[in-house]
Amino acid sequence: MNIQEYTDRLEKLDISKMFGEDFFWTWDKTDDELEAVFTVADALRHLRENNISTKVFDSGLGISIFRDNSTRTRFSFASACNLLGLEVQDLDEKKSQIAHGETVRETANMVSFMADVIGIRDDMYIGKGHTYQKEFINAAAEGHKSGILEQRPTLVNLQCDVDHPTQCMADLLHVIHEFGGVENLKGKKVAMSWAYSPSYGKPLSVPQGVIGLFTRFGMDVVLAHPEGYEVMPEVEEIAKKNAEASGGSFTRTNSMEEAFKDADIVYPKSWAPFAAMEKRTNLYGDGDFDGIDKLEQELLAQNAEHKDWTCTEELMKTTKDGKALYLHCLPADISGVSCKEGEVDASVFDHYRVPLYKEASFKPYIIAAMIFLSKFKDPAGMLKKLADQGKKRITEL
Amino acid sequence: MNIQEYTDRLEKLDISKMFGEDFFWTWDKTDDELEAVFTVADALRHLRENNISTKVFDSGLGISIFRDNSTRTRFSFASACNLLGLEVQDLDEKKSQIAHGETVRETANMVSFMADVIGIRDDMYIGKGHTYQKEFINAAAEGHKSGILEQRPTLVNLQCDVDHPTQCMADLLHVIHEFGGVENLKGKKVAMSWAYSPSYGKPLSVPQGVIGLFTRFGMDVVLAHPEGYEVMPEVEEIAKKNAEASGGSFTRTNSMEEAFKDADIVYPKSWAPFAAMEKRTNLYGDGDFDGIDKLEQELLAQNAEHKDWTCTEELMKTTKDGKALYLHCLPADISGVSCKEGEVDASVFDHYRVPLYKEASFKPYIIAAMIFLSKFKDPAGMLKKLADQGKKRITEL
Amino acid sequence: MNIQEYTDRLEKLDISKMFGEDFFWTWDKTDDELEAVFTVADALRHLRENNISTKVFDSGLGISIFRDNSTRTRFSFASACNLLGLEVQDLDEKKSQIAHGETVRETANMVSFMADVIGIRDDMYIGKGHTYQKEFINAAAEGHKSGILEQRPTLVNLQCDVDHPTQCMADLLHVIHEFGGVENLKGKKVAMSWAYSPSYGKPLSVPQGVIGLFTRFGMDVVLAHPEGYEVMPEVEEIAKKNAEASGGSFTRTNSMEEAFKDADIVYPKSWAPFAAMEKRTNLYGDGDFDGIDKLEQELLAQNAEHKDWTCTEELMKTTKDGKALYLHCLPADISGVSCKEGEVDASVFDHYRVPLYKEASFKPYIIAAMIFLSKFKDPAGMLKKLADQGKKRITEL
Repeated sequence: MNIQEYTDRLEKLDISKMFGEDFFWTWDKTDDELEAVFTVADALRHLRENNISTKVFDSGLGISIFRDNSTRTRFSFASACNLLGLEVQDLDEKKSQIAHGETVRETANMVSFMADVIGIRDDMYIGKGHTYQKEFINAAAEGHKSGILEQRPTLVNLQCDVDHPTQCMADLLHVIHEFGGVENLKGKKVAMSWAYSPSYGKPLSVPQGVIGLFTRFGMDVVLAHPEGYEVMPEVEEIAKKNAEASGGSFTRTNSMEEAFKDADIVYPKSWAPFAAMEKRTNLYGDGDFDGIDKLEQELLAQNAEHKDWTCTEELMKTTKDGKALYLHCLPADISGVSCKEGEVDASVFDHYRVPLYKEASFKPYIIAAMIFLSKFKDPAGMLKKLADQGKKRITEL
Repeated sequence: MNIQEYTDRLEKLDISKMFGEDFFWTWDKTDDELEAVFTVADALRHLRENNISTKVFDSGLGISIFRDNSTRTRFSFASACNLLGLEVQDLDEKKSQIAHGETVRETANMVSFMADVIGIRDDMYIGKGHTYQKEFINAAAEGHKSGILEQRPTLVNLQCDVDHPTQCMADLLHVIHEFGGVENLKGKKVAMSWAYSPSYGKPLSVPQGVIGLFTRFGMDVVLAHPEGYEVMPEVEEIAKKNAEASGGSFTRTNSMEEAFKDADIVYPKSWAPFAAMEKRTNLYGDGDFDGIDKLEQELLAQNAEHKDWTCTEELMKTTKDGKALYLHCLPADISGVSCKEGEVDASVFDHYRVPLYKEASFKPYIIAAMIFLSKFKDPAGMLKKLADQGKKRITEL
Repeated sequence: MNIQEYTDRLEKLDISKMFGEDFFWTWDKTDDELEAVFTVADALRHLRENNISTKVFDSGLGISIFRDNSTRTRFSFASACNLLGLEVQDLDEKKSQIAHGETVRETANMVSFMADVIGIRDDMYIGKGHTYQKEFINAAAEGHKSGILEQRPTLVNLQCDVDHPTQCMADLLHVIHEFGGVENLKGKKVAMSWAYSPSYGKPLSVPQGVIGLFTRFGMDVVLAHPEGYEVMPEVEEIAKKNAEASGGSFTRTNSMEEAFKDADIVYPKSWAPFAAMEKRTNLYGDGDFDGIDKLEQELLAQNAEHKDWTCTEELMKTTKDGKALYLHCLPADISGVSCKEGEVDASVFDHYRVPLYKEASFKPYIIAAMIFLSKFKDPAGMLKKLADQGKKRITEL
């Protein structure tokens, strides 16, 4: 495949509205826009694999704000910025004066004087993460309009309480490559299933992101979880509408077995019940830390009732030809490796290790593509220019 | 305005001694040198706004040392370095071996092997911050002379116990733009006033920096504070001499009302009494932490007697035409927003939010200009070269 | 000296196996390979001193992992990466999800998507540091082979439990410069001596690295320490074999005086006994923290019996012509400066301060040379290309 094929594909898409836009949720974007992200991600990877520089920024900053621990998203964002020529500057809220009672509006302006991109991870509290991202970027956009900021930075959602678009699009790009093209996804069965974990309070953004995205491609998406582990109803609504529009389906079940049966793709992963997370957010708002501790104990006990929700070899055998593609956002809770009992058997995980890591390897390119499409009016033209220039990433003799 | 006008102005100034020099205090610099900083700052901003790269360094490091929390100065320094092509490397004293009892002389050499700039914030203890900066850069300069370091890094004072030059020059550049040129500052009244804050121990460097700088431009600078909140007498002396030389005035009052009356510019901001800060430094030196706690309680109680020192709508109405330019280094203690009672009414702050953020937006350029003038013998020639080259900051088709 | 002389020297060496290789221990490398590192280090320094850019990477990351505090190695690695065009991204294990129980194999892949170099410092536990580095890079190498990673990063050992090659090669390059060439090292006496320190548990990697490296050059290397402060026997074996092969000698003594007598080079430095460090590793493995505390007390008491092992003026007078070259990896425990009684007298340290800091200044170039030689098949050709291009590091008029 040469760069021409990517730019040809891109030129057929209606992506006129991506310029200057942020990336919050996949369901804000049209099918063409999602395809553009996949295409640019592949094109950037193609260039890098051929030692062609994709530095479109001579200088400029990419600001990252991680309100929760992160390894792969942190390094993916750093890689994406570096690939395009931006330097990462992390806002470590502990080293800043934000504790002084500074408003989001102020912080957003103060860190954005030379920021071309802002990447935020804020996934801990239902109703908070997305709100924070929105407030932050609105303030920066206003700052740009008022002449404070010379450029309007682009927001890339690095995980909020609702969606995790860089993760789920990386997951899906991996699926596209494994199945030989987006046109082969129609009719495939996807099991997005809850799985047992000894830890507590895992975000809902991955299962929500998966059902909100995978239903766009004509697949039969099954969301499976024990009773009481519901995700946000708004996102289920989106999944249903997507499925209708794409000619796929979206169903729910309380049986992991049913979900896995004949599945082409399985995504077994723990998450916390939406209602409990909402309760926790309220307790946190009230400063009721005893209440939070009590809730934690309840949730751990509730989890422990569902240790049988785990991705075993036996379960994998019931999938399509016994070899469904296993997905995970990582790190997984692997039974006998990272915990006593967890989301997946060690032997299943080991079997899928290489594809799992490949899945993760798309994330830097997905992030870079989101930035690229927001920054250039004619992304196809820009890709051609990079290819024509042929500047080497590593100097050659 | 095109780049020629900036370089023309620059060529008229005597700035032959700026090459290779550090930036500690504005009063170390001649009027021409200060004007050069403003001019280069504007020129760099002009180039960036026109998408022209100002990367004069192909590689090299900018070392930052923050001995106190920082958001805007941290990001301003990072932005300035990035704008010129330097990569920021932060010396986090907690992750280093400095606790081993390493001398300043040693640290200065060890972090400077490829450092073109060192930015230091050390504002917490009277008599310490400037001394530390001086000791640090002297060691690096000696290291350069002895053949240890290939280049002599330039020190930029990112706030010490005496002055905060990057802040105050950004403040003043904002004022110059608001008043339509430096030539319009003569005779303007500036109220640098203490204001109440529920917090304790705020540095003196901003009020000192303001009276030490604004008196250079023929303005009538009034320093207002309750009795007992005196600033360093040496800096008051400087302010007096500056005022005499520039044809302005420097006066002191214990009345916020008097200071605000007919003022063109107001800068209401809390700070700790100089004498108390000196006492605190000594207690710290003696390891008398009980003494420090006691002092803190006394100071908070003393502050609380002056809650009426706050920038209200009523007070703003008494300024020139009721619309003095309100300045603050941010973050401000806003009554009802970041604290119950503070330096300024929320409605006043809101009214001035956009100009306040613009004020802050000059800091990256001020820092970049300080570096630029220290690194290039012919800064006008270098600006012309950048403009002529016309390399794009963001690639264009 | 011009660049031709460096490339001529390089072209005479057999370095065909360095391409794509890691740098763990100096004794893994041939004499030609070590000479290549010194030559490229000098050449890169020569180019930088002549304001020639050595950026061979247009983009790419250098990942650093410091499992122990670090100042000079941290800044040396950052400087080396910046010199070559790589951006440093530090993996701070506290901010990552590694605590989740993630495997080394996973972390290695997740941080390496765009990593050209990985630098690791892990020196705290005998039998652990090197193992970790090996496991890490093996996982990344496998990841590259499996198509997960687009490039195989190069590992640079920034200090393990066995060797500290970037330090010891910087030490030796300094010695080569001081003695006017590698050909002048034959027959020189080197005293690698234990010295008293009030602190506990200093790594063995420096004394081991020194005896493993300096014995390669026909020198008479004496390892001196009190009874009970033995280093790893495997490394002593290597030192012996090296000495035989190079026509030098390797001996051990329990007398600092004997080691210093007529020495050309002295390296007095504290370290912990190998056997005790091994015991500590086991206690740590068993989670026996009381045992660790007890061991620490024993070791401090044991240290205190040897306060006479210190580098005094008197002792220095007994060296060759009373002016042996004093080496230290820094920071040193200086009597009366960083501690009451320590490794070296303040007057001795002061006398050697400039050469000591020069010694340290080679480390960024040694690291850069290790990377350079692993990344380019024809390093001489690449150096010529850089010199011919003549791109300025700092823009010139």
